Amino acid sequence: MRFVRFERAGHVALGLADVDERGRLRRVLDLAAAQARWGGPPVPQDMVAWIALGDEAVAAARQWWDRARAAGDDGAGAGAGGTGRDGSGAGGDGGTAGTGPRPLWHPADAVRLLAPIARPPKNVMAIGLNYRDHVFEISGRDVPEHPVVFTKAASAVTGPGDPIYTHPGVTAAVDYEGELAVVIGRRGRGIAPERAREYIFGYMILNDVTARDLQRRTSQWHLGKSLDTFCPTGPYLVHRDAVGWPVELDVRTWVNGELRQEANTRQLIFDIPTLLATLSAGITLEPGDVIATGTPSGVGMGFDPPRFLRPGDVVEVEIAGLGRLMNPVVDRLPA
Amino acid sequence: MRFVRFERAGHVALGLADVDERGRLRRVLDLAAAQARWGGPPVPQDMVAWIALGDEAVAAARQWWDRARAAGDDGAGAGAGGTGRDGSGAGGDGGTAGTGPRPLWHPADAVRLLAPIARPPKNVMAIGLNYRDHVFEISGRDVPEHPVVFTKAASAVTGPGDPIYTHPGVTAAVDYEGELAVVIGRRGRGIAPERAREYIFGYMILNDVTARDLQRRTSQWHLGKSLDTFCPTGPYLVHRDAVGWPVELDVRTWVNGELRQEANTRQLIFDIPTLLATLSAGITLEPGDVIATGTPSGVGMGFDPPRFLRPGDVVEVEIAGLGRLMNPVVDRLPA
Repeated sequence: MRFVRFERAGHVALGLADVDERGRLRRVLDLAAAQARWGGPPVPQDMVAWIALGDEAVAAARQWWDRARAAGDDGAGAGAGGTGRDGSGAGGDGGTAGTGPRPLWHPADAVRLLAPIARPPKNVMAIGLNYRDHVFEISGRDVPEHPVVFTKAASAVTGPGDPIYTHPGVTAAVDYEGELAVVIGRRGRGIAPERAREYIFGYMILNDVTARDLQRRTSQWHLGKSLDTFCPTGPYLVHRDAVGWPVELDVRTWVNGELRQEANTRQLIFDIPTLLATLSAGITLEPGDVIATGTPSGVGMGFDPPRFLRPGDVVEVEIAGLGRLMNPVVDRLPA
Repeated sequence: MRFVRFERAGHVALGLADVDERGRLRRVLDLAAAQARWGGPPVPQDMVAWIALGDEAVAAARQWWDRARAAGDDGAGAGAGGTGRDGSGAGGDGGTAGTGPRPLWHPADAVRLLAPIARPPKNVMAIGLNYRDHVFEISGRDVPEHPVVFTKAASAVTGPGDPIYTHPGVTAAVDYEGELAVVIGRRGRGIAPERAREYIFGYMILNDVTARDLQRRTSQWHLGKSLDTFCPTGPYLVHRDAVGWPVELDVRTWVNGELRQEANTRQLIFDIPTLLATLSAGITLEPGDVIATGTPSGVGMGFDPPRFLRPGDVVEVEIAGLGRLMNPVVDRLPA
């Protein structure tokens, strides 16, 4: 299941994405509408609150998904009736207009996907230097003996399609880093590596955008990692059941269509169970916490001369099964 | 005004502290009870939500404070009637029992003060190496040319009296760092130094507890700064109007009654306006954000041999006008 947070006609809700064979969105199942139809746990607007409901809520979502897929006469099928119903304001059983229940399905062009997790409960925990080739391109340093952990401000999180702002006057070296992010499902401290999977809700794509000049201005990377818009995420938060274990997914990053990064998460120096064990040894991990697992080689700084992002660029990160995260680069933000 | 978050008989609420000449709590004005009595903005249970209400809410609190101080016949005066009323379950105008309004004042021994800000909107932003003597004791390094910014996990925040857990098996080098913390009052990016004060809600004491071994295990300090219980704060969040400008406050830290740190915040290498300008250049600061301004010399690691915290120790940090933050050190947490 691909969980999404979406906006439709000014209203924000949680849903499940129905995608085509290339991972592109076809339509969204509105979870609150499904709950209104078939009962089950009330659906919050916030993904963190949803994750905190635990496995029973996930089981309910699975049932809703199966029923909604079977209910061929209801809501916006793939290209059948969705836009019309949307336009008319009618929906739900019997097609009563106006105040009737909202439709189960929204067609792709009627929704805007948002960051799956608008606001993680703590800053995004990010791992540096976790692919060998990247260690060498960045620093020529030795491979670290322990995971290198820094954070990205929770306020930096954005969603698919959202602009990456270049912050003129603050930085002149904005770089991309395509990564796999793990989203925590259950509260825990002292998580043993062999039990790590139980604590994971799912996975999503994350672009660990970085101001290289700020990152290197002092010994600590936080500031250069945390500027507003520097943490695009999504489009989907894919439940762990739809991803194998161990997690071995191809990661690719393009800038303006040019392939820049290509690796597989099996190449992580510190794998996901090790990362969860390291972080949770002393820090309680909580539902909705986000762990960015590190980026492979091919970042802009690795080129000579460096190839930093410029206004007008488009960055895309794709991870097999998790979709594609596209973000344009801008030097001006809408007011 | 000294804002507090407190628990009384299982209920959490916001209040204003009435203190004696040494800064010790005498009684707490219950802001929700004052609002019920005299009207004004509804009072949330959460300090971040309260701060977000802005200057009008602060003005209302000031009025409530003046009225409640004048209402000598009401609630628990200093040692007069408070405990009795508390014990009888009665309160409010006319002293009707049971379902009457709750009393305006709670005596000190009827409340437990909590972390003023239970959960900042992003991790605590902390500044390293911001007093000259501390730079030398820690590293012999040069004084940094720019503020060194790292974060402490939002989940590490605790309150006055809460235990500092030593995390046996995870670290063997737990250290204290007494600091002045700034709490942001208004959302802003690109804050000019000369306008910094407008963006500050107030100040509180913060102990930047640190696992030195984890801090130094990799290049990034985050992990060693973020273990559960490693961010005691409080007891009061003192509004900016009760603190001078520039902020020049004596900071002292004791371990088991032995003075270890003593400095004045005027000695900060990067002052508060510079810190706000540096952080907000690219990061939107938000109501309730916490900035720990750095610690002076005298930390345990600065001794030869180092004097790390041990179970049974008591750490106290005092800042003139902000009260005294006491936390015991334990090697076992209550279940």
